[in-house]
Amino acid sequence: MSESELAATDAAVEPSHDDEDRLTPAFVAAVLDRVEAGDDEGARALVAPLHPADIADLFEVAPEERRPALATALAEMLDADVFAEMNDWVREALLDELDAHQVADIAGQLDTDDAVAIIEDLEEDEQRAVLRALDPDDRAAIEEALSYPEESAGRLMQRELIAVRENMTVGDLLDYLRSNEDLTTDFWEIFVVDPAHRPIGTLRLSWVLRTPRTIQLADVMQREQTLIPVDMDQEEVALRFQKYGLISAAVVDQAGRLVGMITVDDILHIVQEEAGEDVLKLSGAGDGDINEPVLDSYRARVRWLVVNLATALVASSIISLFEGTIQRMVALATLMPIVAGVGGNAGTQTLAVTVRALATNQLTRTNRWRAVMREIRVALLNGATIAVVIGLCVSLVFQNPLLGVVIATAMLANIVIAGLAGVLVPLTLERLKADPAVASSIFVTMTTDSMGFFVFLGLAAASGLVG
Amino acid sequence: MSESELAATDAAVEPSHDDEDRLTPAFVAAVLDRVEAGDDEGARALVAPLHPADIADLFEVAPEERRPALATALAEMLDADVFAEMNDWVREALLDELDAHQVADIAGQLDTDDAVAIIEDLEEDEQRAVLRALDPDDRAAIEEALSYPEESAGRLMQRELIAVRENMTVGDLLDYLRSNEDLTTDFWEIFVVDPAHRPIGTLRLSWVLRTPRTIQLADVMQREQTLIPVDMDQEEVALRFQKYGLISAAVVDQAGRLVGMITVDDILHIVQEEAGEDVLKLSGAGDGDINEPVLDSYRARVRWLVVNLATALVASSIISLFEGTIQRMVALATLMPIVAGVGGNAGTQTLAVTVRALATNQLTRTNRWRAVMREIRVALLNGATIAVVIGLCVSLVFQNPLLGVVIATAMLANIVIAGLAGVLVPLTLERLKADPAVASSIFVTMTTDSMGFFVFLGLAAASGLVG
Repeated sequence: MSESELAATDAAVEPSHDDEDRLTPAFVAAVLDRVEAGDDEGARALVAPLHPADIADLFEVAPEERRPALATALAEMLDADVFAEMNDWVREALLDELDAHQVADIAGQLDTDDAVAIIEDLEEDEQRAVLRALDPDDRAAIEEALSYPEESAGRLMQRELIAVRENMTVGDLLDYLRSNEDLTTDFWEIFVVDPAHRPIGTLRLSWVLRTPRTIQLADVMQREQTLIPVDMDQEEVALRFQKYGLISAAVVDQAGRLVGMITVDDILHIVQEEAGEDVLKLSGAGDGDINEPVLDSYRARVRWLVVNLATALVASSIISLFEGTIQRMVALATLMPIVAGVGGNAGTQTLAVTVRALATNQLTRTNRWRAVMREIRVALLNGATIAVVIGLCVSLVFQNPLLGVVIATAMLANIVIAGLAGVLVPLTLERLKADPAVASSIFVTMTTDSMGFFVFLGLAAASGLVG
Repeated sequence: MSESELAATDAAVEPSHDDEDRLTPAFVAAVLDRVEAGDDEGARALVAPLHPADIADLFEVAPEERRPALATALAEMLDADVFAEMNDWVREALLDELDAHQVADIAGQLDTDDAVAIIEDLEEDEQRAVLRALDPDDRAAIEEALSYPEESAGRLMQRELIAVRENMTVGDLLDYLRSNEDLTTDFWEIFVVDPAHRPIGTLRLSWVLRTPRTIQLADVMQREQTLIPVDMDQEEVALRFQKYGLISAAVVDQAGRLVGMITVDDILHIVQEEAGEDVLKLSGAGDGDINEPVLDSYRARVRWLVVNLATALVASSIISLFEGTIQRMVALATLMPIVAGVGGNAGTQTLAVTVRALATNQLTRTNRWRAVMREIRVALLNGATIAVVIGLCVSLVFQNPLLGVVIATAMLANIVIAGLAGVLVPLTLERLKADPAVASSIFVTMTTDSMGFFVFLGLAAASGLVG
């Protein structure tokens, strides 16, 4: 076997990425093995070709107790970009191992928004120590960002941007950009401002590149622009970026002055987070991050389970009203979870659709009654179908047509109730300025459970089924 | 009252947007009223200041039966950009009203990706008619895009891009861009290709702008780049954009040749869709769009409800095993839904966390056993807490300590079972190359329902509680 074949075999045993661009278990194990064997250089050699985002991933998938040793071995590769890409929980734990000066050193290399993301999660005294260790300019910028509410545009924006006056020509602009070495290097648009530093237009770089040097900026810039108030919520910011297809946007203070810029790459993370959050919120899973410490997950989830326990007790007390009925016909106890369960699922479907439509601004005050009517129609169709199926099954299995009619009627009623609850609960919460995802699921399930039991057992009692 | 005050009052009555940038009901009503009154010009005057995305929104929130008249009134404003921003269902219905030449006219003005998005949803014969009506170049580009699988990079990409050779200087590039009028105007990066048209580097426009004319492109370009294979799934493409913070990326065919470009503004929509889809899939709500026709929603949802009915029958048949036990102590029928319900919620929490972690590539083969152990720990903590609470409540209310012990034990067991099901079901589906969101919820709920009933009623029977 030639040397090159050997190398090929070695590479085949440990390809760093699988076909979905995730680090392979074999590669991660190889790196960790070398660290454990004290072969830090070998570990660095394996990691060297990786993108900062992959190095961040490496820490995330490595077992918690082995991350400090890994960090020591890879110390020289742990630059600011790696920390910026790392999961919040993993980063926090790693930063805890570093002293304030090392953290300040990392933060100082980042754009304001990334630096703020790292510093905002630190404990208060650690945060103060890091801020003291920063150089004054960076410190002022980060302190100002921290003065804005969490998850607001002020935290998301970076201060590094290019702003020019409209009386320049394209040639002036090119000369200015080429001759000022300390300008930021990564930007996608240039903002044109008036003497009071208020944005009056935006220049797309592609237009600047295609325009002769003699043309005035005022003739190339786009005057219509989407300005982001500095205190706007990040979810709202993300919706603007999507709606208007923005690449970057100017952030303005209350006086309308340009104070920062938000770029679309930061928005991608937010859209991912906010859109994915709904599924976590609906189930009460809190932040729902697999890197969150177990006790934090416990605290977030148990709260919701206790509330769920309370609502389950409501449903349970409804059943207890009908103990006599059940005593006379135990089959009712066997069947009642079906009515409640399918109703719950139908309610969750409507709820999911409604929560998504609200989150994407598709469902507004203008069309909400139409949406409610639509869900009632879908519920009637679903309810009728499921009612016929379960009614026939029960009639045949129990040889009791009246029992079939009772469960079919209860099922239809509960699915319609589920549809109503699924659309009205989030709409009401939205109207009360509450998050329509957070508490919706519990109200909807309580409704479908309680009403399912009540309608089914009530009909059984009233219909003379149990004599 | 002066005229200007009157105008101000009028504006106050009908501001077009609310503070979250959604069209107000009053504004929508005003537009629709004018259309109904035959005052098309008045309607156009109101709509004129709107962004194309807002005009698209106007159609979405207008009642379905009034959209054709609205389209007639606003015909001259319904340009390609408006259609590109419109919800798929609403657009499809509107396009049905137009003939093939009108559709071709709209598609011809769009970038390939937007044109494909419009044409791919048409009925097959309508699609053929539109393609025939397009000019040959557009037609070839769109037909090629349609030859790639749905939701692949080939459908997402636009062919309009700037590609140059590396032997140019920055000055050559500027002259080329300024002198070629038929080049695309909106681009964020320039691709450098070799003689075989394979991408070898990327130029950020900001770097080009800051570099003197005499410098070679080869010295400015970034050689490391993320290339997107033309058949890559759009979800995968979106993950690459997020991971590497891309603004645009080159799409290559199997021979590695540059065939198109994907830009981040198209990715935002995909991230929103894919991340939001999980909540819809978990509940079986299909596409879950409030603009979807009622019958389509019915078909999507009822399928899932029928499956849910079948799994509910499994749980029901478990209960029927214990009819004798329930007969002797009806309180068991009252309490059993609590064990099943809270277990179901705990399972859904774990499921939501797992599905999100899988979707964002945070949970991989490398760390999956750690994730399972983590969920078991959280489940033990949650289970112990809820067990103590429900055990004490039931002991006191029913004055029956043994009943308290039975329900507490069953609750602890079911919450641990729920945690296991919540993490193992999606991991198993992922391993079988199935979508971990689609069928997970039903398996998890079936498990928590069946096992909740079985453990609780089984313990009640075995413990001698019912004598």
